[in-house]
Amino acid sequence: MKRLFLQLACVLMLSMLLSPAWAVDPLPSWKDGPSRRAIVTFVEASTQAGAPGFIPVEDRIATFDNDGTLWSEQPVYFQVFFVIDRVKALAPEHPEWKDTEPYRSLMADDLFTAMASGEDGLMEVLAATHAGMSVEEFSTQVREWIASARHPSTNLPYTAMIYQPMRELLDYLRANGYKTYIVSGGGQAFMRPWTEEVYGIPPEQVIGSYSELEYTVRQGKPVLMKLPKVGLVDDNVGKPVGIQRFIGRRPVFAFGNSDGDLQMLQWTMAGKGPHFAGIVHHTDSEREWAYDRTSKIGKLDKALDVAAENGWTVVDMAKEWSQVHPEP
Amino acid sequence: MKRLFLQLACVLMLSMLLSPAWAVDPLPSWKDGPSRRAIVTFVEASTQAGAPGFIPVEDRIATFDNDGTLWSEQPVYFQVFFVIDRVKALAPEHPEWKDTEPYRSLMADDLFTAMASGEDGLMEVLAATHAGMSVEEFSTQVREWIASARHPSTNLPYTAMIYQPMRELLDYLRANGYKTYIVSGGGQAFMRPWTEEVYGIPPEQVIGSYSELEYTVRQGKPVLMKLPKVGLVDDNVGKPVGIQRFIGRRPVFAFGNSDGDLQMLQWTMAGKGPHFAGIVHHTDSEREWAYDRTSKIGKLDKALDVAAENGWTVVDMAKEWSQVHPEP
Repeated sequence: MKRLFLQLACVLMLSMLLSPAWAVDPLPSWKDGPSRRAIVTFVEASTQAGAPGFIPVEDRIATFDNDGTLWSEQPVYFQVFFVIDRVKALAPEHPEWKDTEPYRSLMADDLFTAMASGEDGLMEVLAATHAGMSVEEFSTQVREWIASARHPSTNLPYTAMIYQPMRELLDYLRANGYKTYIVSGGGQAFMRPWTEEVYGIPPEQVIGSYSELEYTVRQGKPVLMKLPKVGLVDDNVGKPVGIQRFIGRRPVFAFGNSDGDLQMLQWTMAGKGPHFAGIVHHTDSEREWAYDRTSKIGKLDKALDVAAENGWTVVDMAKEWSQVHPEP
Repeated sequence: MKRLFLQLACVLMLSMLLSPAWAVDPLPSWKDGPSRRAIVTFVEASTQAGAPGFIPVEDRIATFDNDGTLWSEQPVYFQVFFVIDRVKALAPEHPEWKDTEPYRSLMADDLFTAMASGEDGLMEVLAATHAGMSVEEFSTQVREWIASARHPSTNLPYTAMIYQPMRELLDYLRANGYKTYIVSGGGQAFMRPWTEEVYGIPPEQVIGSYSELEYTVRQGKPVLMKLPKVGLVDDNVGKPVGIQRFIGRRPVFAFGNSDGDLQMLQWTMAGKGPHFAGIVHHTDSEREWAYDRTSKIGKLDKALDVAAENGWTVVDMAKEWSQVHPEP
């Protein structure tokens, strides 16, 4: 009798543990609302063999923009702050910079004057800060910077300014058999040193803009040197190109936040079978920033119209996220 | 008493199942010999936490050349036969080809005259056969070809000319937590349609030479068009470049068969911690082909010297493989 009771108790506990009603909410920072419902409906259908929304596990490829989609991007892309800090660190070796644009403005933290110096000036700064060293040397610079630098207005480490709901979404997708990728206009080599720890995305799943590399032998050891030559601008039409080159399959799930993500979203939605396109709409001037059609950074204009026309999921950050950045 | 006996029987059966002596040999086509022993010793140590040869699972990246390492490559790289068949298929639209090199020689299966036409001629043929269509259209052509084409001397499908021992090695590595990649001088888009089925390697783990792509909208649908412009020549110094670009970490295990793999092997061996470099030495004129220092295809000369100097594993195909291609 005692054994039967124990067996019954076991069965009961197991069924409670396995019941969805008792499962932990995988998306606690997403309030009940159209975006959360659309995501959960899509993902649940995609894992049910035989259901019309089913997606074979090998096709569960999910791609995410980074700046403005996985972490904040105001007042400028955070990589610009890295550039400024590198310029300041290198300035003693370059006394001429204090009279040369865009270096002078960058050193004075005057971002928009610096950006107005045009593409040639910015390319020169990128060459000075992102080339001429080995891939390991550059990784070390990024690691040191990301561990110590602070955002000018929040005074938070940049990695504390990721979006908690998107971190949950990445975990939720992976728990449902999705392979998660970053597809960013930002530098691939700038992201790879920290994305695994911060987002759970390993280096080989980080697609971004990159420079050409040169293999050479230095003091008897092979090295890969970063060259001042752009290999891929992984933005706008460059995003589907990067996706095809790196993944070789079309995503079934994609998330962005700006017009720079439009082609990635369109490429995703033009595939066969079930597909999902999401946009983070920055509507929250209290907890984050509010911007869209006329923003200098992260402009969301045409993609907002296309999303409305096609019924894509547009996340109203202010209304739909109970939390923006992770708890400190 | 009966219960105790059952419990004992369970423990005994479990320990038998878990004992290595009872495990199925994961490398049945590798005879006992220096290569097999070196591989097994390295892989077993790499999975033993605390052992000097231990490698954390996220660093278990293994890269393999394809032509001559995972499948045969004689009398020419198999992709050349694809090119010939494409030229023949397209010839009716190009009456001028029958009087133009290298098309004339290709259509006459005269490979070495065709190859002597120089780089410009070959680039033109590549442009005619590998560009001007969408990525899906090209994939379809490859799929149809690989399913139907036969090797001129063995009359086997090309995918039947993979190396059984290397297929076992790929499985063995994956069973031990390694992520396996192809890093080939051959075309990435030519390999991706069949590597998952044939080698268990998905498209996103296939690095190869590739052409530039253009994102455009055709009849209202986004398409990625293959352009007649080389993006990466993934051979020689291009292999470490491709590895860094696609994986972003250095391999700990690499296998090649020719001088075109030397830099990949050197890059692998120059990393910190335990590393393994292997070379397939084509010594088997009966079951496959025997060639090395003076071969036009798959020349293995300098890499053979470097391997000997550094004690890398050189597989004597004739002596160390009990089987070359899979059983029909």
